[in-house]
Amino acid sequence: MATVGTDRTAVTVIGLGLMGRALAGAFAAAGHPTTVWNRTPGKAAELIASGVREARTAADAVSAGSLLIVCVRDYDAVREILAPVRGALSGRVLLNLTSGASDEARALAGWAGEHGAGYLDGAIMMTPPGIGAPDTVILYGGSPDLFAEHEQTLRVLGGGTTHLSADAGIPSLYDVALLGIMWGTFNSFMHSLALVGTENVAATEFLPFATSWLGGVASFMSTYAQQIDKGEYLAADATLETQLPPIGHLVHESHARGVDATIPEYTKALIEKSIAQGHALDSYARIIEHFRPAAR
Amino acid sequence: MATVGTDRTAVTVIGLGLMGRALAGAFAAAGHPTTVWNRTPGKAAELIASGVREARTAADAVSAGSLLIVCVRDYDAVREILAPVRGALSGRVLLNLTSGASDEARALAGWAGEHGAGYLDGAIMMTPPGIGAPDTVILYGGSPDLFAEHEQTLRVLGGGTTHLSADAGIPSLYDVALLGIMWGTFNSFMHSLALVGTENVAATEFLPFATSWLGGVASFMSTYAQQIDKGEYLAADATLETQLPPIGHLVHESHARGVDATIPEYTKALIEKSIAQGHALDSYARIIEHFRPAAR
Repeated sequence: MATVGTDRTAVTVIGLGLMGRALAGAFAAAGHPTTVWNRTPGKAAELIASGVREARTAADAVSAGSLLIVCVRDYDAVREILAPVRGALSGRVLLNLTSGASDEARALAGWAGEHGAGYLDGAIMMTPPGIGAPDTVILYGGSPDLFAEHEQTLRVLGGGTTHLSADAGIPSLYDVALLGIMWGTFNSFMHSLALVGTENVAATEFLPFATSWLGGVASFMSTYAQQIDKGEYLAADATLETQLPPIGHLVHESHARGVDATIPEYTKALIEKSIAQGHALDSYARIIEHFRPAAR
Repeated sequence: MATVGTDRTAVTVIGLGLMGRALAGAFAAAGHPTTVWNRTPGKAAELIASGVREARTAADAVSAGSLLIVCVRDYDAVREILAPVRGALSGRVLLNLTSGASDEARALAGWAGEHGAGYLDGAIMMTPPGIGAPDTVILYGGSPDLFAEHEQTLRVLGGGTTHLSADAGIPSLYDVALLGIMWGTFNSFMHSLALVGTENVAATEFLPFATSWLGGVASFMSTYAQQIDKGEYLAADATLETQLPPIGHLVHESHARGVDATIPEYTKALIEKSIAQGHALDSYARIIEHFRPAAR
Protein backbone atom coordinates (compact mmCIF):
# COMPACT_ATOMS: atom_id res chain seq x y z
CA MET A 1 0.00 0.00 0.00
CA ALA A 2 1.21 3.48 -0.85
CA THR A 3 1.26 5.96 1.98
CA VAL A 4 -0.95 9.03 1.87
CA GLY A 5 1.26 12.04 1.40
CA THR A 6 0.36 15.70 1.09
CA ASP A 7 2.94 16.08 -1.69
CA ARG A 8 0.56 14.35 -4.06
CA THR A 9 -2.05 16.33 -6.01
CA ALA A 10 -5.46 16.47 -4.36
CA VAL A 11 -7.89 14.89 -6.78
CA THR A 12 -11.66 15.06 -7.00
CA VAL A 13 -13.65 12.51 -8.96
CA ILE A 14 -17.24 13.35 -9.86
CA GLY A 15 -19.31 10.44 -11.09
CA LEU A 16 -19.21 7.07 -9.36
CA GLY A 17 -20.23 4.63 -12.02
CA LEU A 18 -17.99 1.59 -12.51
CA MET A 19 -15.36 3.75 -14.18
CA GLY A 20 -15.48 6.64 -11.71
CA ARG A 21 -15.08 4.26 -8.79
CA ALA A 22 -12.10 2.60 -10.49
CA LEU A 23 -10.47 6.01 -11.08
CA ALA A 24 -10.97 7.18 -7.49
CA GLY A 25 -9.76 3.85 -6.14
CA ALA A 26 -6.58 4.05 -8.20
CA PHE A 27 -5.79 7.58 -7.01
CA ALA A 28 -6.43 6.67 -3.37
CA ALA A 29 -4.26 3.57 -3.68
CA ALA A 30 -1.46 5.75 -5.08
CA GLY A 31 -1.64 8.07 -2.10
CA HIS A 32 -3.50 11.00 -3.61
CA PRO A 33 -5.91 12.83 -1.29
CA THR A 34 -9.08 11.82 -3.11
CA THR A 35 -12.58 13.29 -2.83
CA VAL A 36 -15.60 11.88 -4.63
CA TRP A 37 -19.16 12.94 -5.32
CA ASN A 38 -22.05 11.39 -7.17
CA ARG A 39 -25.50 12.84 -7.93
CA THR A 40 -27.14 9.75 -6.50
CA PRO A 41 -25.57 9.06 -3.10
CA GLY A 42 -24.67 5.65 -1.71
CA LYS A 43 -22.05 4.64 -4.27
CA ALA A 44 -18.96 5.53 -2.24
CA ALA A 45 -19.07 2.98 0.61
CA GLU A 46 -16.19 0.82 -0.63
CA LEU A 47 -14.11 3.86 -1.56
CA ILE A 48 -14.62 5.44 1.87
CA ALA A 49 -13.26 2.26 3.40
CA SER A 50 -10.10 2.82 1.32
CA GLY A 51 -9.61 6.34 2.66
CA VAL A 52 -11.52 8.32 0.04
CA ARG A 53 -13.58 11.28 1.28
CA GLU A 54 -17.14 11.68 0.00
CA ALA A 55 -18.15 15.33 -0.43
CA ARG A 56 -21.64 16.32 0.65
CA THR A 57 -22.21 18.66 -2.28
CA ALA A 58 -20.84 19.20 -5.77
CA ALA A 59 -19.44 22.57 -4.65
CA ASP A 60 -17.67 20.91 -1.75
CA ALA A 61 -16.26 18.30 -4.15
CA VAL A 62 -14.99 20.87 -6.67
CA SER A 63 -13.30 22.90 -3.93
CA ALA A 64 -11.49 19.86 -2.51
CA GLY A 65 -9.21 19.11 -5.45
CA SER A 66 -6.90 21.07 -7.71
CA LEU A 67 -7.47 18.37 -10.35
CA LEU A 68 -11.19 17.88 -10.96
CA ILE A 69 -12.08 14.75 -12.87
CA VAL A 70 -15.56 14.28 -14.25
CA CYS A 71 -16.63 10.88 -15.55
CA VAL A 72 -20.39 10.70 -15.96
CA ARG A 73 -22.97 9.42 -18.43
CA ASP A 74 -22.73 12.14 -21.07
CA TYR A 75 -21.95 15.80 -21.67
CA ASP A 76 -25.47 16.89 -20.68
CA ALA A 77 -24.78 15.40 -17.25
CA VAL A 78 -21.39 17.17 -17.11
CA ARG A 79 -23.08 20.52 -17.81
CA GLU A 80 -25.90 19.91 -15.35
CA ILE A 81 -23.44 19.10 -12.60
CA LEU A 82 -20.86 21.83 -13.29
CA ALA A 83 -23.07 24.78 -14.25
CA PRO A 84 -24.31 25.43 -10.69
CA VAL A 85 -20.74 25.31 -9.30
CA ARG A 86 -19.00 27.19 -12.12
CA GLY A 87 -17.93 29.92 -9.70
CA ALA A 88 -15.65 27.41 -7.96
CA LEU A 89 -13.83 26.29 -11.13
CA SER A 90 -11.41 29.18 -11.46
CA GLY A 91 -7.76 28.17 -11.01
CA ARG A 92 -8.49 24.45 -11.15
CA VAL A 93 -7.92 21.94 -13.92
CA LEU A 94 -10.99 20.19 -15.24
CA LEU A 95 -10.17 16.77 -16.70
CA ASN A 96 -13.20 15.41 -18.51
CA LEU A 97 -13.18 11.63 -18.96
CA THR A 98 -16.84 11.47 -20.01
CA SER A 99 -17.34 9.83 -23.42
CA GLY A 100 -18.68 12.08 -26.11
CA ALA A 101 -18.14 13.63 -29.50
CA SER A 102 -15.18 15.82 -30.40
CA ASP A 103 -17.35 18.93 -30.83
CA GLU A 104 -18.78 18.45 -27.33
CA ALA A 105 -15.24 18.21 -25.89
CA ARG A 106 -14.19 21.39 -27.68
CA ALA A 107 -17.28 23.25 -26.49
CA LEU A 108 -16.68 22.16 -22.90
CA ALA A 109 -13.03 23.23 -23.14
CA GLY A 110 -14.23 26.67 -24.20
CA TRP A 111 -16.78 26.84 -21.40
CA ALA A 112 -14.16 25.84 -18.81
CA GLY A 113 -11.84 28.55 -20.11
CA GLU A 114 -14.60 31.14 -19.75
CA HIS A 115 -14.76 30.21 -16.08
CA GLY A 116 -11.04 30.37 -15.49
CA ALA A 117 -10.39 26.64 -15.46
CA GLY A 118 -7.74 24.76 -17.37
CA TYR A 119 -9.12 21.92 -19.46
CA LEU A 120 -7.91 18.46 -20.41
CA ASP A 121 -9.96 15.82 -22.15
CA GLY A 122 -9.26 12.12 -21.97
CA ALA A 123 -10.47 8.94 -23.60
CA ILE A 124 -10.05 5.75 -21.58
CA MET A 125 -9.39 2.86 -23.99
CA MET A 126 -10.06 0.19 -21.38
CA THR A 127 -12.84 -1.22 -19.23
CA PRO A 128 -12.87 -0.28 -15.50
CA PRO A 129 -11.01 -3.37 -14.20
CA GLY A 130 -7.99 -2.30 -16.28
CA ILE A 131 -7.59 1.09 -14.60
CA GLY A 132 -4.09 1.37 -13.15
CA ALA A 133 -2.60 -1.41 -15.29
CA PRO A 134 0.72 -0.81 -17.08
CA ASP A 135 -0.75 -1.44 -20.55
CA THR A 136 -3.93 0.62 -20.07
CA VAL A 137 -4.12 3.33 -22.72
CA ILE A 138 -5.66 6.70 -21.91
CA LEU A 139 -5.49 9.34 -24.64
CA TYR A 140 -5.33 13.03 -23.71
CA GLY A 141 -5.95 16.29 -25.48
CA GLY A 142 -5.67 19.91 -24.38
CA SER A 143 -2.85 22.17 -23.25
CA PRO A 144 0.50 20.31 -23.40
CA ASP A 145 1.67 22.36 -20.40
CA LEU A 146 -1.30 21.34 -18.27
CA PHE A 147 -0.78 17.74 -19.32
CA ALA A 148 2.92 17.87 -18.41
CA GLU A 149 2.01 19.38 -15.04
CA HIS A 150 -0.32 16.48 -14.23
CA GLU A 151 1.26 13.67 -16.22
CA GLN A 152 2.70 11.91 -13.18
CA THR A 153 -0.69 11.93 -11.46
CA LEU A 154 -2.44 10.71 -14.60
CA ARG A 155 -0.01 7.81 -15.01
CA VAL A 156 -1.61 6.37 -11.88
CA LEU A 157 -4.58 5.48 -14.10
CA GLY A 158 -2.63 3.63 -16.78
CA GLY A 159 0.84 3.07 -18.15
CA GLY A 160 -0.28 3.96 -21.67
CA THR A 161 -0.94 7.60 -20.75
CA THR A 162 -0.49 9.53 -24.01
CA HIS A 163 -0.92 13.16 -24.96
CA LEU A 164 -2.23 13.36 -28.54
CA SER A 165 -2.91 17.00 -29.27
CA ALA A 166 -3.45 20.49 -27.93
CA ASP A 167 -6.92 20.11 -29.41
CA ALA A 168 -9.27 18.84 -26.68
CA GLY A 169 -11.51 17.22 -29.31
CA ILE A 170 -8.91 14.73 -30.61
CA PRO A 171 -9.16 12.07 -27.87
CA SER A 172 -12.90 11.66 -28.47
CA LEU A 173 -12.25 11.22 -32.17
CA TYR A 174 -9.54 8.61 -31.57
CA ASP A 175 -11.85 6.93 -29.08
CA VAL A 176 -14.70 6.33 -31.52
CA ALA A 177 -12.30 5.62 -34.39
CA LEU A 178 -10.69 2.82 -32.35
CA LEU A 179 -14.06 1.56 -31.14
CA GLY A 180 -15.14 1.49 -34.79
CA ILE A 181 -12.27 -0.88 -35.58
CA MET A 182 -13.35 -2.99 -32.63
CA TRP A 183 -16.99 -3.20 -33.68
CA GLY A 184 -16.08 -3.80 -37.32
CA THR A 185 -13.79 -6.66 -36.30
CA PHE A 186 -16.35 -8.07 -33.85
CA ASN A 187 -19.11 -7.98 -36.47
CA SER A 188 -17.03 -9.77 -39.07
CA PHE A 189 -15.92 -12.27 -36.44
CA MET A 190 -19.55 -12.99 -35.49
CA HIS A 191 -20.47 -13.25 -39.15
CA SER A 192 -17.67 -15.78 -39.66
CA LEU A 193 -18.64 -17.73 -36.53
CA ALA A 194 -22.19 -17.96 -37.86
CA LEU A 195 -20.88 -19.25 -41.21
CA VAL A 196 -18.66 -21.97 -39.75
CA GLY A 197 -21.35 -22.62 -37.12
CA THR A 198 -23.60 -23.93 -39.89
CA GLU A 199 -21.05 -26.78 -40.14
CA ASN A 200 -21.12 -27.23 -36.35
CA VAL A 201 -17.68 -25.67 -35.87
CA ALA A 202 -17.58 -24.28 -32.32
CA ALA A 203 -16.60 -20.66 -31.75
CA THR A 204 -13.64 -21.72 -29.61
CA GLU A 205 -12.57 -24.13 -32.36
CA PHE A 206 -12.48 -21.35 -34.96
CA LEU A 207 -11.04 -18.76 -32.54
CA PRO A 208 -7.31 -19.64 -32.78
CA PHE A 209 -7.45 -19.40 -36.57
CA ALA A 210 -9.15 -15.99 -36.32
CA THR A 211 -6.80 -14.51 -33.72
CA SER A 212 -3.62 -15.72 -35.42
CA TRP A 213 -5.05 -14.43 -38.71
CA LEU A 214 -5.54 -10.99 -37.12
CA GLY A 215 -1.76 -10.82 -36.69
CA GLY A 216 -1.39 -11.00 -40.46
CA VAL A 217 -4.19 -8.48 -40.90
CA ALA A 218 -2.35 -6.05 -38.62
CA SER A 219 0.78 -6.47 -40.70
CA PHE A 220 -1.16 -5.54 -43.85
CA MET A 221 -2.62 -2.53 -42.01
CA SER A 222 0.93 -1.34 -41.45
CA THR A 223 1.78 -1.67 -45.16
CA TYR A 224 -1.49 0.03 -46.12
CA ALA A 225 -0.97 2.94 -43.72
CA GLN A 226 2.34 3.69 -45.42
CA GLN A 227 0.73 3.44 -48.86
CA ILE A 228 -2.09 5.75 -47.81
CA ASP A 229 0.31 8.40 -46.53
CA LYS A 230 2.28 8.19 -49.79
CA GLY A 231 -0.80 8.00 -51.99
CA GLU A 232 0.75 5.02 -53.80
CA TYR A 233 -1.20 1.79 -53.70
CA LEU A 234 1.23 -0.78 -55.05
CA ALA A 235 -0.23 -4.28 -54.80
CA ALA A 236 2.80 -6.50 -54.54
CA ASP A 237 0.77 -9.67 -54.29
CA ALA A 238 -2.91 -8.99 -53.59
CA THR A 239 -4.61 -6.73 -56.12
CA LEU A 240 -8.22 -5.59 -55.80
CA GLU A 241 -8.97 -7.67 -58.89
CA THR A 242 -7.76 -10.88 -57.23
CA GLN A 243 -10.07 -10.19 -54.28
CA LEU A 244 -13.20 -10.11 -56.40
CA PRO A 245 -13.67 -13.91 -56.70
CA PRO A 246 -13.21 -14.61 -52.95
CA ILE A 247 -15.53 -11.79 -51.86
CA GLY A 248 -18.07 -13.27 -54.29
CA HIS A 249 -17.64 -16.63 -52.57
CA LEU A 250 -18.19 -15.04 -49.16
CA VAL A 251 -21.42 -13.43 -50.35
CA HIS A 252 -22.46 -16.78 -51.85
CA GLU A 253 -21.67 -18.77 -48.67
CA SER A 254 -23.59 -16.23 -46.60
CA HIS A 255 -26.72 -16.43 -48.75
CA ALA A 256 -26.50 -20.20 -49.15
CA ARG A 257 -26.30 -20.64 -45.36
CA GLY A 258 -28.89 -18.03 -44.40
CA VAL A 259 -26.35 -15.70 -42.76
CA ASP A 260 -26.85 -11.91 -43.09
CA ALA A 261 -24.78 -10.90 -46.13
CA THR A 262 -24.80 -7.13 -45.49
CA ILE A 263 -21.12 -6.98 -44.49
CA PRO A 264 -19.66 -8.94 -47.45
CA GLU A 265 -22.02 -7.23 -49.88
CA TYR A 266 -20.72 -3.87 -48.68
CA THR A 267 -17.12 -5.02 -49.14
CA LYS A 268 -17.93 -6.38 -52.60
CA ALA A 269 -19.46 -3.06 -53.60
CA LEU A 270 -16.37 -1.17 -52.37
CA ILE A 271 -14.04 -3.43 -54.37
CA GLU A 272 -16.22 -3.24 -57.50
CA LYS A 273 -16.45 0.54 -57.25
CA SER A 274 -12.69 0.92 -56.93
CA ILE A 275 -12.08 -1.44 -59.86
CA ALA A 276 -14.62 0.50 -61.96
CA GLN A 277 -12.61 3.64 -61.16
CA GLY A 278 -9.56 2.02 -62.75
CA HIS A 279 -7.83 0.63 -59.67
CA ALA A 280 -8.04 -3.12 -60.43
CA LEU A 281 -4.29 -3.61 -59.98
CA ASP A 282 -4.00 -1.55 -56.79
CA SER A 283 -3.88 -2.85 -53.24
CA TYR A 284 -6.86 -2.77 -50.88
CA ALA A 285 -5.47 0.44 -49.39
CA ARG A 286 -6.99 2.26 -52.39
CA ILE A 287 -10.38 1.75 -50.68
CA ILE A 288 -9.46 4.68 -48.38
CA GLU A 289 -10.65 6.95 -51.18
CA HIS A 290 -14.21 5.78 -50.68
CA PHE A 291 -14.18 7.03 -47.11
CA ARG A 292 -12.38 10.32 -47.61
CA PRO A 293 -14.86 13.20 -47.61
CA ALA A 294 -13.40 14.92 -50.70
CA ALA A 295 -13.92 11.86 -52.87
CA ARG A 296 -17.64 11.50 -52.23
CA MET B 1 20.03 -26.32 -51.59
CA ALA B 2 18.21 -29.61 -51.08
CA THR B 3 19.29 -32.51 -53.26
CA VAL B 4 16.86 -34.08 -55.70
CA GLY B 5 16.05 -37.55 -54.47
CA THR B 6 13.71 -40.16 -55.89
CA ASP B 7 12.43 -40.94 -52.38
CA ARG B 8 10.39 -37.76 -52.47
CA THR B 9 6.86 -37.74 -53.90
CA ALA B 10 6.65 -36.73 -57.55
CA VAL B 11 4.48 -33.64 -57.69
CA THR B 12 2.65 -32.00 -60.56
CA VAL B 13 1.46 -28.40 -60.37
CA ILE B 14 -1.12 -27.27 -62.89
CA GLY B 15 -1.61 -23.51 -63.05
CA LEU B 16 1.35 -21.14 -63.14
CA GLY B 17 -0.04 -17.89 -61.82
CA LEU B 18 1.92 -16.20 -59.02
CA MET B 19 0.71 -18.83 -56.55
CA GLY B 20 1.25 -21.88 -58.76
CA ARG B 21 4.81 -20.76 -59.52
CA ALA B 22 5.48 -20.29 -55.80
CA LEU B 23 4.13 -23.79 -55.03
CA ALA B 24 6.20 -25.48 -57.76
CA GLY B 25 9.30 -23.54 -56.75
CA ALA B 26 8.93 -24.65 -53.13
CA PHE B 27 8.57 -28.33 -54.09
CA ALA B 28 11.55 -28.19 -56.41
CA ALA B 29 13.66 -26.48 -53.75
CA ALA B 30 12.72 -29.25 -51.31
CA GLY B 31 13.92 -31.92 -53.73
CA HIS B 32 10.59 -33.17 -55.08
CA PRO B 33 10.55 -34.21 -58.73
CA THR B 34 8.27 -31.44 -59.95
CA THR B 35 6.35 -31.15 -63.20
CA VAL B 36 4.32 -28.11 -64.19
CA TRP B 37 1.81 -27.21 -66.85
CA ASN B 38 -0.13 -24.06 -67.70
CA ARG B 39 -2.83 -23.53 -70.31
CA THR B 40 -0.98 -20.51 -71.64
CA PRO B 41 2.65 -21.53 -72.17
CA GLY B 42 5.71 -19.40 -71.39
CA LYS B 43 5.26 -19.06 -67.63
CA ALA B 44 7.73 -21.76 -66.58
CA ALA B 45 11.07 -20.26 -67.65
CA GLU B 46 12.31 -19.44 -64.15
CA LEU B 47 11.06 -22.75 -62.76
CA ILE B 48 12.79 -24.74 -65.50
CA ALA B 49 16.03 -23.06 -64.50
CA SER B 50 15.48 -24.48 -61.00
CA GLY B 51 15.10 -28.02 -62.25
CA VAL B 52 11.34 -28.16 -62.76
CA ARG B 53 10.08 -30.04 -65.82
CA GLU B 54 7.41 -28.43 -67.98
CA ALA B 55 4.96 -30.95 -69.45
CA ARG B 56 3.89 -30.49 -73.06
CA THR B 57 0.29 -31.47 -72.42
CA ALA B 58 -2.11 -31.65 -69.49
CA ALA B 59 -2.21 -35.46 -69.88
CA ASP B 60 1.56 -35.61 -69.70
CA ALA B 61 1.48 -33.40 -66.59
CA VAL B 62 -1.14 -35.53 -64.83
CA SER B 63 0.77 -38.74 -65.55
CA ALA B 64 4.03 -37.34 -64.18
CA GLY B 65 3.03 -36.96 -60.52
CA SER B 66 1.32 -39.12 -57.94
CA LEU B 67 0.26 -35.88 -56.22
CA LEU B 68 -1.53 -33.61 -58.67
CA ILE B 69 -1.97 -30.04 -57.48
CA VAL B 70 -4.29 -27.68 -59.31
CA CYS B 71 -4.17 -23.97 -58.55
CA VAL B 72 -5.99 -21.99 -61.22
CA ARG B 73 -8.40 -19.08 -61.52
CA ASP B 74 -11.62 -20.84 -60.52
CA TYR B 75 -13.46 -24.16 -60.50
CA ASP B 76 -14.65 -23.72 -64.08
CA ALA B 77 -11.01 -23.65 -65.13
CA VAL B 78 -10.30 -26.74 -63.00
CA ARG B 79 -13.09 -28.64 -64.76
CA GLU B 80 -12.05 -27.45 -68.22
CA ILE B 81 -8.48 -28.61 -67.64
CA LEU B 82 -9.22 -31.93 -65.92
CA ALA B 83 -12.26 -33.18 -67.84
CA PRO B 84 -10.29 -34.12 -71.01
CA VAL B 85 -7.66 -35.99 -68.96
CA ARG B 86 -9.99 -37.65 -66.47
CA GLY B 87 -8.92 -41.09 -67.68
CA ALA B 88 -5.44 -40.47 -66.25
CA LEU B 89 -6.64 -39.54 -62.75
CA SER B 90 -7.21 -43.00 -61.38
CA GLY B 91 -4.89 -43.93 -58.52
CA ARG B 92 -3.60 -40.40 -58.09
CA VAL B 93 -4.36 -37.79 -55.43
CA LEU B 94 -5.87 -34.55 -56.65
CA LEU B 95 -5.11 -31.63 -54.33
CA ASN B 96 -7.15 -28.64 -55.34
CA LEU B 97 -5.76 -25.32 -54.11
CA THR B 98 -8.02 -23.23 -56.34
CA SER B 99 -10.16 -20.73 -54.39
CA GLY B 100 -13.86 -21.33 -54.48
CA ALA B 101 -17.00 -22.05 -52.51
CA SER B 102 -17.48 -25.05 -50.24
CA ASP B 103 -20.15 -26.59 -52.48
CA GLU B 104 -17.78 -26.40 -55.46
CA ALA B 105 -15.08 -28.19 -53.46
CA ARG B 106 -17.49 -30.94 -52.42
CA ALA B 107 -18.71 -31.42 -55.98
CA LEU B 108 -15.15 -31.66 -57.28
CA ALA B 109 -14.30 -34.19 -54.55
CA GLY B 110 -17.23 -36.30 -55.73
CA TRP B 111 -16.17 -35.99 -59.36
CA ALA B 112 -12.59 -37.00 -58.53
CA GLY B 113 -13.87 -40.03 -56.66
CA GLU B 114 -15.94 -41.06 -59.67
CA HIS B 115 -12.71 -41.15 -61.66
CA GLY B 116 -10.78 -43.16 -59.11
CA ALA B 117 -8.76 -40.27 -57.68
CA GLY B 118 -8.27 -39.39 -54.04
CA TYR B 119 -9.18 -35.79 -53.23
CA LEU B 120 -7.83 -33.17 -50.86
CA ASP B 121 -8.83 -29.54 -50.82
CA GLY B 122 -6.69 -26.76 -49.45
CA ALA B 123 -7.01 -23.06 -48.68
CA ILE B 124 -3.79 -21.06 -48.70
CA MET B 125 -4.07 -18.30 -46.09
CA MET B 126 -1.07 -16.38 -47.41
CA THR B 127 0.09 -14.47 -50.46
CA PRO B 128 2.56 -16.20 -52.85
CA PRO B 129 5.79 -14.77 -51.35
CA GLY B 130 4.94 -16.52 -48.07
CA ILE B 131 4.86 -20.02 -49.56
CA GLY B 132 7.33 -22.22 -47.71
CA ALA B 133 7.55 -20.00 -44.63
CA PRO B 134 7.26 -21.59 -41.17
CA ASP B 135 4.23 -19.48 -40.19
CA THR B 136 2.33 -19.89 -43.46
CA VAL B 137 -1.07 -21.42 -42.80
CA ILE B 138 -2.65 -23.81 -45.31
CA LEU B 139 -5.92 -25.44 -44.29
CA TYR B 140 -6.83 -28.87 -45.62
CA GLY B 141 -9.99 -30.93 -45.92
CA GLY B 142 -10.68 -34.41 -47.22
CA SER B 143 -9.64 -37.93 -46.21
CA PRO B 144 -7.50 -37.84 -43.04
CA ASP B 145 -5.60 -40.89 -44.34
CA LEU B 146 -4.71 -39.20 -47.62
CA PHE B 147 -3.66 -36.11 -45.71
CA ALA B 148 -1.47 -38.14 -43.36
CA GLU B 149 0.09 -39.88 -46.35
CA HIS B 150 1.10 -36.55 -47.92
CA GLU B 151 1.50 -34.37 -44.85
CA GLN B 152 5.30 -34.31 -44.99
CA THR B 153 5.20 -33.22 -48.64
CA LEU B 154 2.58 -30.56 -47.92
CA ARG B 155 4.62 -29.10 -45.06
CA VAL B 156 7.05 -27.94 -47.74
CA LEU B 157 4.47 -25.26 -48.58
CA GLY B 158 4.06 -23.87 -45.06
CA GLY B 159 4.70 -24.67 -41.42
CA GLY B 160 1.06 -24.00 -40.55
CA THR B 161 -0.18 -27.04 -42.49
CA THR B 162 -3.42 -28.04 -40.78
CA HIS B 163 -6.03 -30.70 -41.49
CA LEU B 164 -9.46 -29.37 -40.53
CA SER B 165 -12.00 -31.95 -41.54
CA ALA B 166 -12.77 -35.03 -43.61
CA ASP B 167 -15.23 -32.73 -45.41
CA ALA B 168 -13.49 -31.28 -48.47
CA GLY B 169 -15.73 -28.19 -48.34
CA ILE B 170 -14.50 -26.94 -44.94
CA PRO B 171 -11.23 -25.26 -46.02
CA SER B 172 -13.09 -23.04 -48.51
CA LEU B 173 -15.50 -22.01 -45.79
CA TYR B 174 -12.69 -21.20 -43.33
CA ASP B 175 -10.95 -19.34 -46.14
CA VAL B 176 -13.77 -16.90 -46.84
CA ALA B 177 -14.69 -16.67 -43.15
CA LEU B 178 -11.14 -15.55 -42.34
CA LEU B 179 -11.02 -13.24 -45.34
CA GLY B 180 -14.29 -11.74 -44.10
CA ILE B 181 -12.62 -10.85 -40.80
CA MET B 182 -9.78 -9.31 -42.79
CA TRP B 183 -12.05 -7.18 -44.98
CA GLY B 184 -14.24 -6.16 -42.05
CA THR B 185 -11.17 -5.04 -40.11
CA PHE B 186 -9.67 -3.29 -43.15
CA ASN B 187 -12.92 -1.44 -43.85
CA SER B 188 -13.26 -0.21 -40.28
CA PHE B 189 -9.59 0.74 -40.27
CA MET B 190 -10.02 2.79 -43.48
CA HIS B 191 -13.16 4.36 -42.04
CA SER B 192 -11.21 5.34 -38.93
CA LEU B 193 -8.29 6.66 -40.96
CA ALA B 194 -10.70 8.82 -42.92
CA LEU B 195 -12.17 10.17 -39.68
CA VAL B 196 -8.87 11.09 -38.07
CA GLY B 197 -7.64 12.22 -41.49
CA THR B 198 -10.15 15.07 -41.35
CA GLU B 199 -7.96 16.37 -38.49
CA ASN B 200 -4.82 15.83 -40.57
CA VAL B 201 -3.72 12.81 -38.57
CA ALA B 202 -1.53 10.69 -40.86
CA ALA B 203 -2.35 7.00 -41.33
CA THR B 204 1.06 6.00 -39.97
CA GLU B 205 0.46 8.26 -36.95
CA PHE B 206 -2.82 6.51 -36.11
CA LEU B 207 -1.51 3.03 -37.02
CA PRO B 208 0.27 2.11 -33.75
CA PHE B 209 -2.87 2.94 -31.76
CA ALA B 210 -4.93 0.77 -34.10
CA THR B 211 -2.61 -2.23 -34.10
CA SER B 212 -2.04 -2.24 -30.36
CA TRP B 213 -5.82 -1.84 -29.92
CA LEU B 214 -6.36 -4.94 -32.09
CA GLY B 215 -4.52 -6.93 -29.42
CA GLY B 216 -7.23 -6.01 -26.93
CA VAL B 217 -9.92 -6.74 -29.52
CA ALA B 218 -8.47 -10.25 -29.99
CA SER B 219 -8.59 -10.80 -26.25
CA PHE B 220 -12.31 -9.88 -26.21
CA MET B 221 -12.86 -12.25 -29.16
CA SER B 222 -11.49 -15.03 -27.00
CA THR B 223 -13.88 -14.20 -24.16
CA TYR B 224 -16.78 -13.90 -26.59
CA ALA B 225 -16.03 -17.23 -28.29
CA GLN B 226 -16.31 -18.97 -24.92
CA GLN B 227 -19.56 -17.13 -24.16
CA ILE B 228 -20.98 -18.06 -27.56
CA ASP B 229 -20.21 -21.75 -27.07
CA LYS B 230 -21.83 -21.65 -23.62
CA GLY B 231 -24.76 -19.51 -24.75
CA GLU B 232 -24.14 -17.22 -21.75
CA TYR B 233 -23.41 -13.60 -22.52
CA LEU B 234 -22.26 -12.19 -19.20
CA ALA B 235 -21.06 -8.60 -19.60
CA ALA B 236 -18.56 -8.19 -16.81
CA ASP B 237 -17.77 -4.61 -17.74
CA ALA B 238 -19.09 -3.67 -21.19
CA THR B 239 -22.82 -4.18 -21.66
CA LEU B 240 -24.59 -3.58 -24.96
CA GLU B 241 -26.37 -0.68 -23.26
CA THR B 242 -23.09 1.09 -22.44
CA GLN B 243 -22.06 0.79 -26.10
CA LEU B 244 -25.07 2.71 -27.38
CA PRO B 245 -23.75 6.23 -26.61
CA PRO B 246 -20.30 5.66 -28.20
CA ILE B 247 -21.71 4.05 -31.35
CA GLY B 248 -24.00 7.09 -31.57
CA HIS B 249 -20.92 9.32 -31.36
CA LEU B 250 -19.22 7.35 -34.14
CA VAL B 251 -22.24 7.78 -36.40
CA HIS B 252 -22.30 11.49 -35.50
CA GLU B 253 -18.57 12.01 -36.17
CA SER B 254 -18.93 10.20 -39.51
CA HIS B 255 -21.83 12.36 -40.68
CA ALA B 256 -20.31 15.58 -39.32
CA ARG B 257 -17.05 14.89 -41.20
CA GLY B 258 -18.61 13.62 -44.45
CA VAL B 259 -17.34 10.06 -43.98
CA ASP B 260 -19.53 7.15 -45.16
CA ALA B 261 -21.52 6.09 -42.06
CA THR B 262 -22.75 2.74 -43.40
CA ILE B 263 -20.50 0.66 -41.13
CA PRO B 264 -21.30 2.40 -37.80
CA GLU B 265 -24.99 2.65 -38.71
CA TYR B 266 -25.05 -1.10 -39.23
CA THR B 267 -23.37 -1.66 -35.85
CA LYS B 268 -25.79 0.74 -34.18
CA ALA B 269 -28.75 -1.13 -35.65
CA LEU B 270 -27.36 -4.46 -34.41
CA ILE B 271 -26.91 -3.10 -30.87
CA GLU B 272 -30.35 -1.47 -30.85
CA LYS B 273 -32.01 -4.65 -32.14
CA SER B 274 -30.35 -6.76 -29.47
CA ILE B 275 -31.31 -4.30 -26.73
CA ALA B 276 -34.90 -4.26 -28.02
CA GLN B 277 -34.88 -8.04 -27.69
CA GLY B 278 -34.10 -7.66 -23.99
CA HIS B 279 -30.33 -8.07 -24.03
CA ALA B 280 -29.28 -4.60 -22.81
CA LEU B 281 -27.14 -6.00 -20.02
CA ASP B 282 -25.45 -8.70 -22.12
CA SER B 283 -22.02 -8.55 -23.71
CA TYR B 284 -21.46 -7.85 -27.40
CA ALA B 285 -21.19 -11.60 -27.98
CA ARG B 286 -25.01 -11.68 -27.92
CA ILE B 287 -24.86 -10.13 -31.42
CA ILE B 288 -24.03 -13.63 -32.75
CA GLU B 289 -27.77 -14.31 -32.66
CA HIS B 290 -28.32 -11.79 -35.43
CA PHE B 291 -26.08 -13.78 -37.75
CA ARG B 292 -27.24 -17.28 -36.90
CA PRO B 293 -29.63 -18.59 -39.57
CA ALA B 294 -32.18 -19.98 -37.08
CA ALA B 295 -32.72 -16.59 -35.47
CA ARG B 296 -33.62 -14.75 -38.65
